[in-house]
Amino acid sequence: MTNDNPNAWTTAITQIKPNEVRVRGYNIAELMGQVSFGAMVYLILRGELPDDKTGKLMDGILCAGIDHGATPPSALAARTVASTGANLSAAVASGIMCINQHHGGAMENCAKALTLMLTKVDQGKSMSDAAVDLLDEFKAQKKRIAGFGHRIHKADPRTARLFELAKEAGAFGRYCEAAQAIEQVFVDKGKPLPINVDGAIGAVLADLGFEPEIMNGLFMIPRAAGMIAHVREEQTRMKPMRKVDPVAHTYDGPEPRSLK
Amino acid sequence: MTNDNPNAWTTAITQIKPNEVRVRGYNIAELMGQVSFGAMVYLILRGELPDDKTGKLMDGILCAGIDHGATPPSALAARTVASTGANLSAAVASGIMCINQHHGGAMENCAKALTLMLTKVDQGKSMSDAAVDLLDEFKAQKKRIAGFGHRIHKADPRTARLFELAKEAGAFGRYCEAAQAIEQVFVDKGKPLPINVDGAIGAVLADLGFEPEIMNGLFMIPRAAGMIAHVREEQTRMKPMRKVDPVAHTYDGPEPRSLK
Amino acid sequence: MTNDNPNAWTTAITQIKPNEVRVRGYNIAELMGQVSFGAMVYLILRGELPDDKTGKLMDGILCAGIDHGATPPSALAARTVASTGANLSAAVASGIMCINQHHGGAMENCAKALTLMLTKVDQGKSMSDAAVDLLDEFKAQKKRIAGFGHRIHKADPRTARLFELAKEAGAFGRYCEAAQAIEQVFVDKGKPLPINVDGAIGAVLADLGFEPEIMNGLFMIPRAAGMIAHVREEQTRMKPMRKVDPVAHTYDGPEPRSLK
Amino acid sequence: MTNDNPNAWTTAITQIKPNEVRVRGYNIAELMGQVSFGAMVYLILRGELPDDKTGKLMDGILCAGIDHGATPPSALAARTVASTGANLSAAVASGIMCINQHHGGAMENCAKALTLMLTKVDQGKSMSDAAVDLLDEFKAQKKRIAGFGHRIHKADPRTARLFELAKEAGAFGRYCEAAQAIEQVFVDKGKPLPINVDGAIGAVLADLGFEPEIMNGLFMIPRAAGMIAHVREEQTRMKPMRKVDPVAHTYDGPEPRSLK
Repeated sequence: MTNDNPNAWTTAITQIKPNEVRVRGYNIAELMGQVSFGAMVYLILRGELPDDKTGKLMDGILCAGIDHGATPPSALAARTVASTGANLSAAVASGIMCINQHHGGAMENCAKALTLMLTKVDQGKSMSDAAVDLLDEFKAQKKRIAGFGHRIHKADPRTARLFELAKEAGAFGRYCEAAQAIEQVFVDKGKPLPINVDGAIGAVLADLGFEPEIMNGLFMIPRAAGMIAHVREEQTRMKPMRKVDPVAHTYDGPEPRSLK
Repeated sequence: MTNDNPNAWTTAITQIKPNEVRVRGYNIAELMGQVSFGAMVYLILRGELPDDKTGKLMDGILCAGIDHGATPPSALAARTVASTGANLSAAVASGIMCINQHHGGAMENCAKALTLMLTKVDQGKSMSDAAVDLLDEFKAQKKRIAGFGHRIHKADPRTARLFELAKEAGAFGRYCEAAQAIEQVFVDKGKPLPINVDGAIGAVLADLGFEPEIMNGLFMIPRAAGMIAHVREEQTRMKPMRKVDPVAHTYDGPEPRSLK
Repeated sequence: MTNDNPNAWTTAITQIKPNEVRVRGYNIAELMGQVSFGAMVYLILRGELPDDKTGKLMDGILCAGIDHGATPPSALAARTVASTGANLSAAVASGIMCINQHHGGAMENCAKALTLMLTKVDQGKSMSDAAVDLLDEFKAQKKRIAGFGHRIHKADPRTARLFELAKEAGAFGRYCEAAQAIEQVFVDKGKPLPINVDGAIGAVLADLGFEPEIMNGLFMIPRAAGMIAHVREEQTRMKPMRKVDPVAHTYDGPEPRSLK
Repeated sequence: MTNDNPNAWTTAITQIKPNEVRVRGYNIAELMGQVSFGAMVYLILRGELPDDKTGKLMDGILCAGIDHGATPPSALAARTVASTGANLSAAVASGIMCINQHHGGAMENCAKALTLMLTKVDQGKSMSDAAVDLLDEFKAQKKRIAGFGHRIHKADPRTARLFELAKEAGAFGRYCEAAQAIEQVFVDKGKPLPINVDGAIGAVLADLGFEPEIMNGLFMIPRAAGMIAHVREEQTRMKPMRKVDPVAHTYDGPEPRSLK
């Protein structure tokens, strides 16, 4: 641990002393009960504590991603691995391993596309013109823009709610505006393709200053909770080594209910 | 997908309909901004929404586990895998795979030991006598009781804070009392061995009704956030294929600071 | 690396010197082209080089386990993870994570059951009586004996071939005999339940001196090759994020053909 | 499972029928004992059985990659995960997850660079000129060419042995020649940088017709065996949760010995 160890290294995340664990300088024991977990995630990933409304927004983003039923590859992989007798940790890990370019990646890809579009705005274009340009470029390259449209959800209320929370937190900035400008271009073309929840999270996280490369992480954290639920259900309700059909499943949980 | 599919199955976690994602019956869009992520985790794992104070307690539990520096195997594995050029998801997954019997397992093992002790109480013993009995049994079997004592932290303020939040939430029940009875026995024997944060979380989660088999999950969720921070730091500050020394690292992040 | 490093440790597997890599004492460069990979696996796991016939037996065991089509959880998990855009290594790793108690575990479990049976033989029972006893005990505990019977293969020619190779290598010992004694008891009872390929491998490996805890490893090595084939096929023939149906797949590869 | 299942799919790897498992058309039971495992790997990945000498070459390639001691990230990750109480499969999987761009990737990257160089040869350049051009281009892009030079091994006898086996198998083709032409350019420049074993395997596999994207797989298969040895040693010789030092380890296995 002396200076002459050629492999000595430094880390700026967490400081451990006897009876003291500090994340980015803050004592965890002090934060417990004072800040939400969403704020804590913001702290560890961005280096600073957010204000209360941004903390609430972070909680909203985490809540949005907690689960999407038994169809996504992450849930199916976690259940398939669990069915072989794997530990909880290995089964959950196999689900985490699915959060990649094609599953979750829309946040990162949408944020990157919006960054490209905002470069055009920086160069003097209007939001609207920049959006048209971007979509033309994507079309010419035969690429689809990530974060718009959804196979099942055409008007996802999670998206609306997210933008609402972002506005309350003062985090509805130029990335969110850029996303809405793109949405408008699709409407103008007569082919409405609303921004989906992944795209909206990508835009909001970009406005909060998160780098695109880390956005999938904001999906891994809550989805870990969903996968734990799936793995535990698999362990307690299903037979080992069953064939996990990705389609032939139905919901038999609590009836729809509301907070009030 | 018809009834004659021998592999058809059911799940009670999440219901997906067009423009509606319901976890345990609740519409995620409605919950966003109304409940904390801690409450959401409680909902998906326990099936019901907690009251506000229990939600806050859950946030506290998640905050407590977010990171423990660069020494734990989970951080080291995640960094080692990241150093080879793995995706964020694979690197984080390798860290999750470390949350097992010996790393994180103290929650589960402590809860199971407390359950054993409470069986004695149910049979008429006092808390104090049951604690003595339990420790004698463990000694006879040459087993250490999980969740007591810590290599570094002798009086972990996270433990105190956690019990405080549990009391506020009305969740400081017989498991927590049992843990404190054990702590007292150690004091009486002149070998104080305070309950550590893992043991305390195990006791609180047991009082909240979580089954021991799922407790490590409550550690995986927040630690995923910590590992994302470690992996991203590795990717941006370190050279590929470096030798990740488990000891020769120092903290160079923000100075100690406080909320106020 | 001096003696005062409290974390210094030793390993007895491979020695690295400039221009020299020695596994269990043997220079890899000398072994290349002189021994089969099966012999190499035996060397690294057992510590000694086998004779040629045992090397050939090891190759046979590895060949037997290379793939079992698209139905096993390992292939499905690997393909599901691959479909999300994961690296080859992550996708293969998710398949490896499936080789557990319920998938592959029959080798280990069969070897352990045979060990139990052979204890009875050591105590003076005949093979036949010990087999009857063992099955009675399993029945009383409502346990099935691993390694006997198969959903699809009733007379698996791989089993016969394996025992043949074991006999040629002088490795058909008391574990194999014990397995056949059990098979005979099932016949005598009028409920034939032939030893399957996993059970046969477990018996042969036990006769070769492998400990049961490592037997699943002999399945992971060749199956890694199978999973690489599955992952690459998934990457090159399938669309990302497809629903990987565990049943609705058919074979469209080369027609049946023979060595001669 | 009928044709109207929109998720029905096909696979060309393995056909399962009662008492018959055919890989790429060949019955495994027939192959066992007739072909080496190296030949089997060639079959499942390339679709055809190799001749005997190519099978032997494949065994040599697999033997070359079986282990490289306790320093590589794959061994360290596998041991770190194992130290937490993970299953054998999870620990091995974490090691497999390390076989990526920076660990193992030299085979793929070398093969891709050689392909680039051979395009120049196809356009009329001599091997020697093409090699000079390639290295100039890499230099201009500030890239190092993968597969040449090694931190520890300056004249790796595994490389020489591999080329020998490749020549015997008639598999020493233009990729191998291109690699040697590059080696010669380095000599001519007075900065000898010999082709290392990864680069040599990349060249030989390319001459055998393997696509670069799958080459890391040829490293995962044998290294799985090495990692099983490491994990088992960790489980049986080491304490749980020890700090796995990447440098402070020494070899205490069998003394150097030879086949004869």
